[in-house]
Amino acid sequence: MKAFITGGAGFVGASVADFLLSQGHSVTIYDIREASSEPSAKAPKAPIEPLPAMQFIRGDVNDLPALKAAMAHHDAVFHFAANSDIALGAYDTSIDLQMSTIATHNVLEAMRKSDICSITYFSGSGVYGDAHGSEMREDAGPLLPVSLYGAGKLAAEGLISAYSHLFGMDALIFRPANIVGGKQTHGVIFDFVRKLRTNPYQLEVLGDGKQTKSYIHISDVIEAIHLAHNHHGSAWAAQALGEAASVSEHPGVTVYNLASADEVSVDWIAQTVISHMKLSDVEINYTGGASGWPGDVPVIRLSTEKLRSVGWRPQLSSKEAITMAVQEILSDKTEF
Amino acid sequence: MKAFITGGAGFVGASVADFLLSQGHSVTIYDIREASSEPSAKAPKAPIEPLPAMQFIRGDVNDLPALKAAMAHHDAVFHFAANSDIALGAYDTSIDLQMSTIATHNVLEAMRKSDICSITYFSGSGVYGDAHGSEMREDAGPLLPVSLYGAGKLAAEGLISAYSHLFGMDALIFRPANIVGGKQTHGVIFDFVRKLRTNPYQLEVLGDGKQTKSYIHISDVIEAIHLAHNHHGSAWAAQALGEAASVSEHPGVTVYNLASADEVSVDWIAQTVISHMKLSDVEINYTGGASGWPGDVPVIRLSTEKLRSVGWRPQLSSKEAITMAVQEILSDKTEF
Repeated sequence: MKAFITGGAGFVGASVADFLLSQGHSVTIYDIREASSEPSAKAPKAPIEPLPAMQFIRGDVNDLPALKAAMAHHDAVFHFAANSDIALGAYDTSIDLQMSTIATHNVLEAMRKSDICSITYFSGSGVYGDAHGSEMREDAGPLLPVSLYGAGKLAAEGLISAYSHLFGMDALIFRPANIVGGKQTHGVIFDFVRKLRTNPYQLEVLGDGKQTKSYIHISDVIEAIHLAHNHHGSAWAAQALGEAASVSEHPGVTVYNLASADEVSVDWIAQTVISHMKLSDVEINYTGGASGWPGDVPVIRLSTEKLRSVGWRPQLSSKEAITMAVQEILSDKTEF
Repeated sequence: MKAFITGGAGFVGASVADFLLSQGHSVTIYDIREASSEPSAKAPKAPIEPLPAMQFIRGDVNDLPALKAAMAHHDAVFHFAANSDIALGAYDTSIDLQMSTIATHNVLEAMRKSDICSITYFSGSGVYGDAHGSEMREDAGPLLPVSLYGAGKLAAEGLISAYSHLFGMDALIFRPANIVGGKQTHGVIFDFVRKLRTNPYQLEVLGDGKQTKSYIHISDVIEAIHLAHNHHGSAWAAQALGEAASVSEHPGVTVYNLASADEVSVDWIAQTVISHMKLSDVEINYTGGASGWPGDVPVIRLSTEKLRSVGWRPQLSSKEAITMAVQEILSDKTEF
């Protein structure tokens, strides 16, 4: 299979690229990779070696002619390019419209022109809005996001669904919890490590520290993509699992929540980072409020019954995923 | 109240304008009204008299500076501007992105700049996608539209929700069935009358004629807007009903389905139009297929329990609404 990965220089995209390469597929990474301060646009922490099966194209998903030219002759698209800074949308109200909604429209247009029928998209729990702690299943509605990041993800889901039905594509849409791992370039662990390396005596925590969310390790995410694709009838996934492909000519659109079973608080993460950095006497200053930033959802709970029904089980709990990610980040010698 | 109505020259927008004017409010209609072949952009069939309380601004919701300038100093926005041709999205894949998603983003940006906190939006049953005949409640998910029209409506809902939460707006979102009435400028009745006036011996019906949907008369739609706004705490609606306004400082975002209790088939509508036009021996030619066009949903059923819980009851069934609309359209002497 020839895979085309938008945002493939970012944390999740690069991990998926690594996985697909390890399975013998060829991979094209398409990423803007500007030397900007935007974390998701940074070069990967551990640059992927240029293998014969891998090519890297520096390009913008909002440059439709370039995207079309790059995407031709691929078999499947994995679409990760997006704004990753949820808080930014409250100040730059166009960024998610451009980077999620219009960008996804461009990806789908390029697929249509190139007759590519398979898309894997990473949406997010943000589409559910603030469910006030209720555990959300994939069939919950109405979907009323409280951030423009969530609105952009919801718009992208709708576009993918409509294109799939109109033009015979099929799609896997994941709504993940917070994904953590050694190569991550943003997020709460990354922020805490960065802040404590700058000042090991004080740690600013956004909100009241009681925000409670599920965290999932990138290794469990990769396994979910693999198993869901196998269940969906994607020949490459069945092949890698040593199984026959399911008989499903046009499987349509399927949405999966993706989370570990438990949730942890931001306070617990702060203490874990402090402890692993062997610091003591760190003064924690809370910015206050139940939300870390405008559009933050204090408590997120996702049902993963549907993903479990295709055989997926997370190997790590939220606590284990956080602990492993903290160790991986601290053992990474790259400066950030 | 000073109301700002985008798409106020169209069928539903003009009817809402009439209603608000009749209640003593001032109304600004903002509409592109190009002399184009696009039905929704046509001038209203019965032009609204220029009352002192009404002004008409010819403008494009995609011209953000003009929209901002026009919207200043209003109290509430009623947002109807959109592409109304669902089938078109399969051929012009950008029109709903531009006319629903980006246009709604522009409307919300203009509201934010003008400190306008109330928006009433007409989404559509298209956000539910194809539920294969199941009756959909507002809390159903996942929302997987099968047309780009539906995807645009879903994206607009998400944007409205995020803006409401981030910037203290409140919103009423309606997901209506097919709205019918004398001033309508598109839709199945309008099409059948137009075709039969051109050729009274033959009628082309899109699909197999068995598509089954709910139709609601514009008079019941106006009543729904009024009652829902009253329940939502909108002072103007309570005043018009002679009640005290509800105590609700920031009512947030509420979604209501809007449909009559029954459904009728396209075949039934064809026979009703033929009968009211006093025609006989009309040969009906079906284009075939369960869907009338790519992205059409053959059977749509909406639960209206939520809207009924605020006191709304449709006065007309689908059959009665169709019959009344056919009579109204046929008695309208305007050529089309």
